[in-house]
Amino acid sequence: MRTLNDSMYNSYKCWLQTSLPEEGILKTINPLLPKEGYRIRQLNNHISIEGGSNAGLIYGTFALHRRLAAGHDIDCEGAPRIARRVINHWDNPDGSIERGYAGKSIFFKNGELNYSIEQVNDYARLLASIGINEITINNVNVSAEGAKLLTDMLPDVKKIADIFRPWNIRISLAINFESPVLLDGMPTADPLDPNVRLWWEKRVEEIYSMIPDFSGFLVKADSEFIGGPVAHGRTEADGANMLARILAPFGGVVYWRCFIYDCLQDWRDSTIDRPKAAYEIFMPQDGLFEPNVILQIKNGPCDFQVREPNSPLLGALKKTNRALELQITQEYTGQQIDLYYLGTQWEEVFSFPVDDKLVLRDLMGKKINCIVGISNIGNDENWTGNILAQANLYAFGRLAWDPSLTAGEILKEWIPMTFGGNTEVIEKIYEILMRSRETYEKYTTPMGLGWMVNVHSHYGPSPEGYEYSKWGTYHRANYKAIGIDRTSKGTKFTLQYHPSLTAMFDDINKCPEKLLLFFHRLNYSHVMKNGKTLLQHYYDLHFEGVEDVEEFIEIWKSLEPHLPKKAYDNVLERLKLQLKNAIEWRDVLNTYFYRFTGIPDAKGRKIYE
Amino acid sequence: MRTLNDSMYNSYKCWLQTSLPEEGILKTINPLLPKEGYRIRQLNNHISIEGGSNAGLIYGTFALHRRLAAGHDIDCEGAPRIARRVINHWDNPDGSIERGYAGKSIFFKNGELNYSIEQVNDYARLLASIGINEITINNVNVSAEGAKLLTDMLPDVKKIADIFRPWNIRISLAINFESPVLLDGMPTADPLDPNVRLWWEKRVEEIYSMIPDFSGFLVKADSEFIGGPVAHGRTEADGANMLARILAPFGGVVYWRCFIYDCLQDWRDSTIDRPKAAYEIFMPQDGLFEPNVILQIKNGPCDFQVREPNSPLLGALKKTNRALELQITQEYTGQQIDLYYLGTQWEEVFSFPVDDKLVLRDLMGKKINCIVGISNIGNDENWTGNILAQANLYAFGRLAWDPSLTAGEILKEWIPMTFGGNTEVIEKIYEILMRSRETYEKYTTPMGLGWMVNVHSHYGPSPEGYEYSKWGTYHRANYKAIGIDRTSKGTKFTLQYHPSLTAMFDDINKCPEKLLLFFHRLNYSHVMKNGKTLLQHYYDLHFEGVEDVEEFIEIWKSLEPHLPKKAYDNVLERLKLQLKNAIEWRDVLNTYFYRFTGIPDAKGRKIYE
Repeated sequence: MRTLNDSMYNSYKCWLQTSLPEEGILKTINPLLPKEGYRIRQLNNHISIEGGSNAGLIYGTFALHRRLAAGHDIDCEGAPRIARRVINHWDNPDGSIERGYAGKSIFFKNGELNYSIEQVNDYARLLASIGINEITINNVNVSAEGAKLLTDMLPDVKKIADIFRPWNIRISLAINFESPVLLDGMPTADPLDPNVRLWWEKRVEEIYSMIPDFSGFLVKADSEFIGGPVAHGRTEADGANMLARILAPFGGVVYWRCFIYDCLQDWRDSTIDRPKAAYEIFMPQDGLFEPNVILQIKNGPCDFQVREPNSPLLGALKKTNRALELQITQEYTGQQIDLYYLGTQWEEVFSFPVDDKLVLRDLMGKKINCIVGISNIGNDENWTGNILAQANLYAFGRLAWDPSLTAGEILKEWIPMTFGGNTEVIEKIYEILMRSRETYEKYTTPMGLGWMVNVHSHYGPSPEGYEYSKWGTYHRANYKAIGIDRTSKGTKFTLQYHPSLTAMFDDINKCPEKLLLFFHRLNYSHVMKNGKTLLQHYYDLHFEGVEDVEEFIEIWKSLEPHLPKKAYDNVLERLKLQLKNAIEWRDVLNTYFYRFTGIPDAKGRKIYE
Repeated sequence: MRTLNDSMYNSYKCWLQTSLPEEGILKTINPLLPKEGYRIRQLNNHISIEGGSNAGLIYGTFALHRRLAAGHDIDCEGAPRIARRVINHWDNPDGSIERGYAGKSIFFKNGELNYSIEQVNDYARLLASIGINEITINNVNVSAEGAKLLTDMLPDVKKIADIFRPWNIRISLAINFESPVLLDGMPTADPLDPNVRLWWEKRVEEIYSMIPDFSGFLVKADSEFIGGPVAHGRTEADGANMLARILAPFGGVVYWRCFIYDCLQDWRDSTIDRPKAAYEIFMPQDGLFEPNVILQIKNGPCDFQVREPNSPLLGALKKTNRALELQITQEYTGQQIDLYYLGTQWEEVFSFPVDDKLVLRDLMGKKINCIVGISNIGNDENWTGNILAQANLYAFGRLAWDPSLTAGEILKEWIPMTFGGNTEVIEKIYEILMRSRETYEKYTTPMGLGWMVNVHSHYGPSPEGYEYSKWGTYHRANYKAIGIDRTSKGTKFTLQYHPSLTAMFDDINKCPEKLLLFFHRLNYSHVMKNGKTLLQHYYDLHFEGVEDVEEFIEIWKSLEPHLPKKAYDNVLERLKLQLKNAIEWRDVLNTYFYRFTGIPDAKGRKIYE
């Protein structure tokens, strides 16, 4: 039913190259099904796809694609568990993408919306195939230029919305809260000022006159040097509610990001602890937000590190709608050079406990009825720079549809859809992708330490690159110990969790070892469960990480005969760069701790002076 | 004879506000004097200025200004010790200035030469007043845009040359060695390719047809990712000589920079030592360069750090013309925020031994008959951002004219010329400027360590910011020691000096303590001549540095009644920023070493964990 060759790879560049049978599919709308739901049946002389609406038919069609490629039974039913499945683009009007690793924006160029209709339509189809139903096209860091999407560029936003609409994808915009000042020179953007409200009312009316299904505004406010209601002496709720009340009559929502912390922290002040910030700001306002405000919360309390506990805010808020924000683009996780399948990480995020009974997955589709992913695509021919990074976009969409899927199940769909049915290919790619996150973690910052990256680029090691900065990202390593004590005897961060979790994280014997240095400050001589010292364990992981990458390269090379040349070369090139990066991390980090301790590797492996 | 008030400060913005008597000056040319020389005599009813040429008259007139302001006898003679007194601008066509801290370029804007004739003429007069006779208007890092100065922008270069000519200042251009490729798409820039030579011949003919007194080309080649002859399998001499032979008939020269080193070094490889690079490259080529090639050598073997030994190349080359390159712009030395009078540093550079008999000053005007300073000016109203940074431009010009002047003598001219004759003002500004360099050194990287700055910006502390980078700038601190052993038992850098210096630097008891960590790797427990451990000495210097800045602020405040408000406010604002910076350096660096050692300050002062 399907073949795979270079020319198909070139033309589709993604998992959509599966061919559907041209005939024999009967599509009908069945109003008894959920609106976005579908049912597929193999009947005697045809395949029936029923959909709760046109959207359901779209999703049913792609489900059929998927099941044919993965070799699953055709008969099935489906409906999304989560209502809002959103992609955020961090695309700037000049065509650059903040933390983008796959070329330039497919939407913007030279300060305007300037795009290929065909490419954007291909992208809409790609997103529809994994069930995405909303997209924010511009960066949350909204410059004065970007703010013009609300005004001068609005007719062009409408055209984009028209491309996405047939694919059941609505448009939202990231706005700058100071837009009344930036765009119209108004004296203030105070959310309680009547003229400011009037200004926003006008904008919203204009938007809905052109884009009747416009989804709403995404707001990064009072964060990282960007203005917001607090700068006007108001609260986050004041700001979000002002916008929400204006949007409500049109069915629009406000996504209000909770990524707020002191980004001018004094490193000397160890009483401030960055991961505590969002909870401290938003918990007192729980219940004060309008029903169409959605608080958008990153999975971890820091910032998309290789391993963090879940943000306590996700579970703690009781009366406020919220969205889980995941980062598909690999900012701190290899930048689409290093292999890093995020599915495994996200599976853990969903499995992370909220209290003594529930895990995050249990909340999904309820008060957390929205998932947002930061896009990893750009205008690179294969969308994601590294073709294997497509698995992350795919996994995001599938998990947004159904958070109970496992990382492995998703890969078993994606690999055959992308590389064909060869068992060796499927098994080997499955192996390296499933191992990829742990490998990356081994050679970078294991045990929950995080950061230690090069300043600005966030790629490659710089153990003290952010150590004395204003960003609140400290590990305070010295000659005998490392880490921040975040227990209830330390910065008290653990008190933000349900008591059962506080107890677990506080107790060095119960705290998951993979998060040990997130929660505890430990001597290098601390003995791990495997009997090794923390230091030796650390050395071992770094040596292992490099060995893993060497193994990945060998595995990949063995697949050469079975893969399209372009895909093979693309990944091999990246793997070689990854090996270089892994060696750099291993050597720099091992040396960093060796210089503190003077303790050599127990196995006598090379650590540089 | 002179007064100083706000309006004069505003209009002249520099030391040139001294009023000359309107009448009673007789200027005559005396061909018996050196061409740029002058003689001034107070006669009965007039002052006579004789000049060896018009240039001599210009310099004589400014000398009269200076002597009147400083209260010196009017009768005097003068002639420059050094033939070529050059300012290099690191100005880019887009108007930015690489490592500029006083606003934008006064020459460039939006990709073209776009300037105020009045401002450029003011600047020419300013430079003439201190004896500068040549200027390179564009950045040594020549982009494809900047390369067009040779072609499209040449008519505009001519206009600039016309403004500078009456002030006895010639123009030179920084060129990109790859220009034939960049500008005309030629297949190569190989200096031995006849077509390449023809291409340059054409350029040079064109230039001299428009600018008959054009001085020559400044070339940064094979350095920091910029192409050069080595990239074509040739030598530096091949590249420089090709250009020199073309320029020779027109009287032009080639300034060939020696700032070449491995900027992709592997930090693991301790056999490479960046300061050795220039000597290793250029010494074997000594004598191979055409007579109109001038090798342009930075004062230190690293890169304008707060304290370095002199580059061994300055003294070692025997058969090659050379220029001493100094950095007036305060890249690593406070960025015109922190007070840093470079005069004291340059006096040391000239007093640094070349062998067992001579110091660098003794070579000046001979094989080193050229001094180059990297400009510290921009379009800020007071030229240099911090008005006190004007002293550095002034000192550069005066030392280029006469390297035997002391830093103090120069200040005693500059202060009254700039701030008037009030004794308290003169004495107090003298004090803080004379102390400023040592103060900056105390709170940053004393004992010759260098670097430890924030990546990219080069302002503020980041002790390991460059530690694992590719730039060759390592200090390799660990729990017990710091520094690179550059002695003849270490990287052998000291062998590049005359044996008497090798012996001095090799011997830990004879090596100047202020350069101890440049040449030696030492334990923190090393006992200094003052009886303190290295570590305690280090702590003490950092505490003292901050105290000095606090004292500077008090001294400056005491001058408020005697200073124009604008100048007073300008410096006070910078001093307050400096205090913040000094505290940051003190705390970060003390903490950095405390974390390695666990040894607190002997006097119990606060060191953060």
